[in-house]
Amino acid sequence: MPDRIRATVWGENVHERKNAIVAQVYPDGMHDCIADGLREDAALEVRAATLQEAEHGLTKSVLAETDVLLWWGHAAHGEVADTVVERVLGRVWEGMGFIALHSAHYSKIFKRLMGTSCSLTWREAGERERLWVCNPGHRIARGIEPSFEIENTEMYGEPFAIPPPDEIVFLSWFEGGEVFRSGCTWKRGNGKIFYFRPGHETYPIYFHPVVRQVLRNAVHWAAPDGRPWIDSCPNIPIDQAHEKLVAKGPKLHKEGEKGFR
Amino acid sequence: MPDRIRATVWGENVHERKNAIVAQVYPDGMHDCIADGLREDAALEVRAATLQEAEHGLTKSVLAETDVLLWWGHAAHGEVADTVVERVLGRVWEGMGFIALHSAHYSKIFKRLMGTSCSLTWREAGERERLWVCNPGHRIARGIEPSFEIENTEMYGEPFAIPPPDEIVFLSWFEGGEVFRSGCTWKRGNGKIFYFRPGHETYPIYFHPVVRQVLRNAVHWAAPDGRPWIDSCPNIPIDQAHEKLVAKGPKLHKEGEKGFR
Amino acid sequence: MPDRIRATVWGENVHERKNAIVAQVYPDGMHDCIADGLREDAALEVRAATLQEAEHGLTKSVLAETDVLLWWGHAAHGEVADTVVERVLGRVWEGMGFIALHSAHYSKIFKRLMGTSCSLTWREAGERERLWVCNPGHRIARGIEPSFEIENTEMYGEPFAIPPPDEIVFLSWFEGGEVFRSGCTWKRGNGKIFYFRPGHETYPIYFHPVVRQVLRNAVHWAAPDGRPWIDSCPNIPIDQAHEKLVAKGPKLHKEGEKGFR
Amino acid sequence: MPDRIRATVWGENVHERKNAIVAQVYPDGMHDCIADGLREDAALEVRAATLQEAEHGLTKSVLAETDVLLWWGHAAHGEVADTVVERVLGRVWEGMGFIALHSAHYSKIFKRLMGTSCSLTWREAGERERLWVCNPGHRIARGIEPSFEIENTEMYGEPFAIPPPDEIVFLSWFEGGEVFRSGCTWKRGNGKIFYFRPGHETYPIYFHPVVRQVLRNAVHWAAPDGRPWIDSCPNIPIDQAHEKLVAKGPKLHKEGEKGFR
Repeated sequence: MPDRIRATVWGENVHERKNAIVAQVYPDGMHDCIADGLREDAALEVRAATLQEAEHGLTKSVLAETDVLLWWGHAAHGEVADTVVERVLGRVWEGMGFIALHSAHYSKIFKRLMGTSCSLTWREAGERERLWVCNPGHRIARGIEPSFEIENTEMYGEPFAIPPPDEIVFLSWFEGGEVFRSGCTWKRGNGKIFYFRPGHETYPIYFHPVVRQVLRNAVHWAAPDGRPWIDSCPNIPIDQAHEKLVAKGPKLHKEGEKGFR
Repeated sequence: MPDRIRATVWGENVHERKNAIVAQVYPDGMHDCIADGLREDAALEVRAATLQEAEHGLTKSVLAETDVLLWWGHAAHGEVADTVVERVLGRVWEGMGFIALHSAHYSKIFKRLMGTSCSLTWREAGERERLWVCNPGHRIARGIEPSFEIENTEMYGEPFAIPPPDEIVFLSWFEGGEVFRSGCTWKRGNGKIFYFRPGHETYPIYFHPVVRQVLRNAVHWAAPDGRPWIDSCPNIPIDQAHEKLVAKGPKLHKEGEKGFR
Repeated sequence: MPDRIRATVWGENVHERKNAIVAQVYPDGMHDCIADGLREDAALEVRAATLQEAEHGLTKSVLAETDVLLWWGHAAHGEVADTVVERVLGRVWEGMGFIALHSAHYSKIFKRLMGTSCSLTWREAGERERLWVCNPGHRIARGIEPSFEIENTEMYGEPFAIPPPDEIVFLSWFEGGEVFRSGCTWKRGNGKIFYFRPGHETYPIYFHPVVRQVLRNAVHWAAPDGRPWIDSCPNIPIDQAHEKLVAKGPKLHKEGEKGFR
Repeated sequence: MPDRIRATVWGENVHERKNAIVAQVYPDGMHDCIADGLREDAALEVRAATLQEAEHGLTKSVLAETDVLLWWGHAAHGEVADTVVERVLGRVWEGMGFIALHSAHYSKIFKRLMGTSCSLTWREAGERERLWVCNPGHRIARGIEPSFEIENTEMYGEPFAIPPPDEIVFLSWFEGGEVFRSGCTWKRGNGKIFYFRPGHETYPIYFHPVVRQVLRNAVHWAAPDGRPWIDSCPNIPIDQAHEKLVAKGPKLHKEGEKGFR
C-alpha cells in the first residue's frame, strides 16, 4: 500500500461542454469539481481522466496506479470502449475500489459488476432529498449527521434493480414521495464497490460539503487492503496435487493443455 | 404459474459430435441426457435446445415459455451470440430461473450474471469427488444424503472467483486435496440462480442418480414464484408524484423525454 | 408438506385488554384480526395463540404442526418465557417460517435470530406512510401495486439495527421525513424470516386489505420447502470416516464421548 | 482510532490446568500463546483475560479499551456470566471486532451473534487439515499461500449451522474426507466478526506460523474504522420532525414517554 491513497476521478465531460446550464454550474467540468472535493483530504492523491482522452485516460498504467476509481457518466455511456470496460473490470477484481456516482447506475461498468439491469424510476423536478444514515459507525458515514439534505435534486426511486447490497449506508427520502437505496456497497473479486446516488449535473451537488465528505470517506473505505488478486484459471498438474494422485479414466485435455474460455 | 414447471436444457452439443470419448458416453448429446434426468419428475415439462439451432434454440417465444433454463457449455462459449445472451439475461431478471452446470462457470451468461471473472483451478485426473450438504433442509438438498460421491471427475478448486453466494448448498472434497463451493445460489433481479459443479463430459456424471435428483430439486427451487418483473426505467411525471410537487430549478430533460442509456 | 400451509398467529394480547383505544379497534384481539386476514386465503390453515395460555399456547405439538409462525408483541416482550423462546428458535432452525410484525422488532425471539440490538427511531403522530416495492417479482409482493399507503401510523426510522437483509421487499416513506426498511428477509438455519413494519395497535392497520395481502403472501413465501433440518452436533467415529483414517496424536475426548456445550 | 490496535485475547483457561496433555502443549495457557502470536506484530497492543478473573477480566473499562476481542473457550461455555455476554454483544454492535476461535463456535456470544445453533460434525483423530484461500486479495489472507496444512487436528465438518457468511476466506479439506467453512466473516451492528476454525487444545496449533499470521491479519481487518455506533431506540418528538407534522389520531404513549422493551 502506498502512503497516500491514489484516486482517479473519471468524468464523461459531455454535458459540461454542450449544455449551458451544466457549463455554468461546473465550468471546469464535473470531474474537476469532484476531484477538488477529494483533494481537501491530504491523505488522497487525486487525478482526473475523461472520455475524450486516448483510451478515455484509463491506460493500463493509469489503472495500475489507481487505488480507487470514481465514475461519473450520463449522456455517453455507449461511447465507452469495451476494451476499457474490460480493463477496469479486471482491476476491480484485483482489488481496485470503484465508486459509481448518480447516473453511473447505467454505465457499462456498473451494470457489468452488478449483473442486473440497474434500472430505477426518476423525475427531474428540483425537489428536496434527505439522506439517512443506516449505520452511523460505518467508515463511509464517519462524521456525517444522522441525516442531511440536498435542496434541489433529481429523484431516483425504487425499484432499483440491483443485487442485494452487502450493506446499505444511506437511504433517501424525496419530497415527491419516493424512497431510494442511495448508498450501497458490494464486493466483486477483491474490489470494493460503492454506489452513491446524489449528483445530478444541473445542480451544484458536488460542491455540497457533506456529499464531499461522503466521497472522501468512501475512497478510504474502498482502497484495497490486501495484495492484488491476480486472477487466472490455472491447470494443476497431476504431479503437483497435494495428495498423491494416479490419473484414471478418459481425458478431454492433453497434459499441460490450456482450458477453454 | 403453470401447473408443470417448464424447463429448457441448453447444450452446446460440440464435444458430443467431435470427441469420440464424449460421443460414446453421451450418444444422444449431453442436453438429452440432462433432460432425461429431469423427465423422471412428472411435475416438470422438459425440452432441449442447442447452439446449432437458429438463435441457438432460444427464441423469444421459447424463453417466454421457459420457467427454468439449464446451461451446459464448454468448448464454444465464444460462439454464443450476444443478442441471445442479452435475451436470456432479460428473462432471468424477469424471474426465469437459471442453472449453470460445471464448465458453464465460464459461459458468457454466467459471467454477466455474476459480475466477476468466475475463474477457478482445475485438473483432469479422473479423481474421486465427495459433495457435502451444507443445509440438509434446503429445497435443493431434499432427499439427498449428508454426502454423496462421484467416482471419476475433473477437479475444480478454490479460489472460485464468484461474489459471495446467498447460500452454499454443497461443498466438494477432492481426492487430490482440493475443495470447492460446488452448489451455490444467487438472485439477480427476480431470477434465482444455481451453480452446480459436477458434470465433466468424459464421465457419465449426468447419469448419476443423485446428480439427477439435485437437478430436479434445483428446477423446483429456481422456478419463479411471483409475477414477472417487467423492468424499465420510467420517468415519473411531476403531476403524478404521490406528494404535491412544484418543479424547481433548471432541468436537463424536457418534460416526457426519455432518459439516457 | 401438508396440502394447506399451517400458520399460527401469536399475539401478546395485553393492550387489547388494558387500553380502551386498542380494545375498540381490535375488540377480539389483534391476533384474531391478523388470523382473519390470513383466513381469506383458503390455502392457509390458521390458528391463534396468546401469551396468557399455558406455555403461551406454543407447546411442542403446536409448534410441530406450525409451518409459519407470525408474532405480535409490544408491551410484554419480557414476559415471554425463555424456554418458549428456545423452542421457537429450534423450530425456525428446522425450517419453520417466522414473521415478525411491527413492534416485534424488540421481541426476544427476533433479537435472538438477528444477533443485533434491533433498535430504531420512532414517533407516534398518526402520520402517513407509503411503502414502496423494491422487487415487484418477489413472492411477497405478488399482486401489490408499486406503492401503497397507510393513512395513520406510528413512524419507525433508520438506523434500524439489523444485519444486512438477504432481500428488501419494502421501503417506507414517512410524512414526517424519515425512511425505513419495512419489509426484510433473512434465513437462519433452514427457517425463512420476514420482518414487516406496519401494525401499530392504535390504528386499524391489520384490517388494511394490502397489509393483509402482504401477510398472506409472506406465509406462502416462508413455508418450508425442504425436509426439517434436525440439528445436532454429532461425533463422527474414526471407523466411519469416508476416507480410511488411523488415529494419531493425543486426544481430549474418549471414543464415543459427547462434546462440550 | 488509536495508533496501535488494541487486542484482548480471552481464554477460558480450564483444560490447560486440568488436562495434562493440554498443560504440556500450552504451559502458560492458550490465551498466552495466542497473545504471543499477535505480539509479533508491533502495530498490535495485546492483553489477555480469563474466565477466572473478576467479571472474567472483561470489565467495562477493559472492553472500552479493546478494539478487537479474540475468544477461546471449550469446556466452560456455560460458566460465562450472561451480564458479560450482554456487555460484549453491546461492544460488538458499537464496532469492536470479534474473532471466534475453533470451539468458540459453541460459545454463548458467538451463538448470540449468529442467531443459529452453530452446530457441526466433529472427530478427534489427529488427522491432517489443509486450508484453502478463497480470496487471495482479502486482508485476512495477506501473505498466505494458496493453501497451508496443519498436520494434526480435530476435524470439524459440514453442515456448519451458521447464517450465510458475508465472505468465506478459508475452506478446509480433511484427511478423513470432510470439508468445512473454516474462515468466515459477518457484521453485526458495526462490529466485524471472523470465525477461524483451527485450534484444538491437544495440538500446538497456536504456535503454527501461518495460523498466527492469519490471526494478526484478522485483527487488522476486524479493527473498527468508523466512530462507535452508540445504539439506542430514541423517540423523535413531533416538533423535531424534519417535515412539518401535526399529530393525528389516537396515541399509545404520552409525549416524551419511553418505548416498551
